Amino acid sequence: MTQTATYRVGSNIAFIKYWGVADATINIPLNNSISMTLADAYTTTTVTWDVDGRLATDEVTVDGERFAPKKAQRVVDHLDRLRAVAGVNYRAQVTSANNFPMASGIASSASGFAALTVAGCAALGLDLDPTRLSAIARRGSGSASRSLFGGFVEWEQGHDDVTSVAHQLYTEDHWDLRDIVAVISSEEKKVSSAGGHLLALTSPLAEGRRDHVDGWLAEVRRAITERDIARLGPIIELDALAMHSVMMTSNPSLLYWQPGTLTILHAVQHWREDDGLQAYFTIDAGPNVHLICEADTAAEVETRLAQLPGIERVIVSQAGPGPMRIFEDQT
Amino acid sequence: MTQTATYRVGSNIAFIKYWGVADATINIPLNNSISMTLADAYTTTTVTWDVDGRLATDEVTVDGERFAPKKAQRVVDHLDRLRAVAGVNYRAQVTSANNFPMASGIASSASGFAALTVAGCAALGLDLDPTRLSAIARRGSGSASRSLFGGFVEWEQGHDDVTSVAHQLYTEDHWDLRDIVAVISSEEKKVSSAGGHLLALTSPLAEGRRDHVDGWLAEVRRAITERDIARLGPIIELDALAMHSVMMTSNPSLLYWQPGTLTILHAVQHWREDDGLQAYFTIDAGPNVHLICEADTAAEVETRLAQLPGIERVIVSQAGPGPMRIFEDQT
Repeated sequence: MTQTATYRVGSNIAFIKYWGVADATINIPLNNSISMTLADAYTTTTVTWDVDGRLATDEVTVDGERFAPKKAQRVVDHLDRLRAVAGVNYRAQVTSANNFPMASGIASSASGFAALTVAGCAALGLDLDPTRLSAIARRGSGSASRSLFGGFVEWEQGHDDVTSVAHQLYTEDHWDLRDIVAVISSEEKKVSSAGGHLLALTSPLAEGRRDHVDGWLAEVRRAITERDIARLGPIIELDALAMHSVMMTSNPSLLYWQPGTLTILHAVQHWREDDGLQAYFTIDAGPNVHLICEADTAAEVETRLAQLPGIERVIVSQAGPGPMRIFEDQT
Repeated sequence: MTQTATYRVGSNIAFIKYWGVADATINIPLNNSISMTLADAYTTTTVTWDVDGRLATDEVTVDGERFAPKKAQRVVDHLDRLRAVAGVNYRAQVTSANNFPMASGIASSASGFAALTVAGCAALGLDLDPTRLSAIARRGSGSASRSLFGGFVEWEQGHDDVTSVAHQLYTEDHWDLRDIVAVISSEEKKVSSAGGHLLALTSPLAEGRRDHVDGWLAEVRRAITERDIARLGPIIELDALAMHSVMMTSNPSLLYWQPGTLTILHAVQHWREDDGLQAYFTIDAGPNVHLICEADTAAEVETRLAQLPGIERVIVSQAGPGPMRIFEDQT
């Protein structure tokens, strides 16, 4: 029996966002979401099950840091889910590394919990299809459900643990889009995304977003089908602004933006209006800005971003595949 | 017959905002609004009617600038309203001056159109009560309807030209609040407020704000009655954020905030959380931030604002009276 497995899983950037939970215990979201899986921002995770009973506890190491029990709890909770599926009670050693910095505006929980799920299940010898893995990953982190698939992915809201899963809309070679992340702050977030999801329904504006998001999802699907950036862009900007509207009018108010966030939003609007540059922003639960554009525009966007003040670094990624198993001689 | 009159009228800062029109032709708003009239930010306007027929056109001078016909049109349109009320067709000479800079985050259209209304009517010898004047001023600029009264004022949405008027909640000596305006940019706005009001209903979030604003109005009334800054503050922040949420999710998106706006929002949140400083923000249709606090906190707020980067100037005002006639020997 295989006791260990290593997987590399890309993070993803949502075009229509996941924000707010209908059922917080198993992360049933308030709406469907659509994302692009990232090729160049990924987590590599090895799970080794301690079948011989040598470990007293699960051991979790992320980016070289051995997590203390409290910090490891969310990973341990997820290992419990894998143990429950397999009907075992082995402890595990988990070693995980991101190829992108924490708090960079790239969701490490998406790639991290997806990688933990696939590596953990593979190491247990479970032969689960991606849909089932998506459901399990969702319970670790909602957006992780989408990273089980490559390319362009939709997570169906569903209504229970079986139906709330992601599926692929198109593979990564359907459309050569780029996600260019302008990292403007590496400060820790005061409220984690997991905590924020619980607050969404305290916003007087949450219902308005929910009432409109089905139309935006349809537009985004069509834009992806037709590879139409001028159709995609305005909708992803609108949904990002609507999500941040919900965040900042929650109780308490979640104001993720920093001054540098607005510098970039205004710059992108000017680049489009003055020069016709087809780049559009989206913003996750943090201050950093993702610019989405087609491959032939990416170099120009990068050059312009580099000239703005207050940007710590720029990370570029194209659309990527689903989970990839890494064998020992490759690591 | 008196042919000339001069009035000084304070601007106002809204605690619950006017944003969006149900009827754009006569400025029937989407919701009631509540404001404080400002003592220290005012417009002084002289209207002289040309009963002898010497002028070929209305002449409009604001802050020393003689307005060209296109720029004067909105004032001329308002003079037409006054002429219609009086049943005359005299041309007028209008001279108006603000004691605060344009584009400072203080609404010069509120004090300006209120002053134009009262001075123009007085110079025509019309003896109209403040409610009637409020209705006339509203048609020049919605928020001008509130500047017809001193102290704390509510503009009833109403449903037609007669019912959509302001009234006083409390006189200016009821509660010694201060409005401390941090002016962070003097750039011209790309979209005027008048244009923006037409866009409000294009936002998917407009309905959500409208559904909740009646509750916020009740809270603000009660907070003013009880002179309770800890009750007032969170609601004015929520409504300002909700209004800007509507603005930025309109089509096209109205993003009035600048980087310096967020610097102040974060600072104020920290001052409250870390030091218990009872100051709360509100933001009109522009980048500048108004901090509302009680008199005994104002000096501390001013000192702290002065230490933030990127603030051009700080303007402080207390609650002020309604329109005051200025006689020649006083000017």
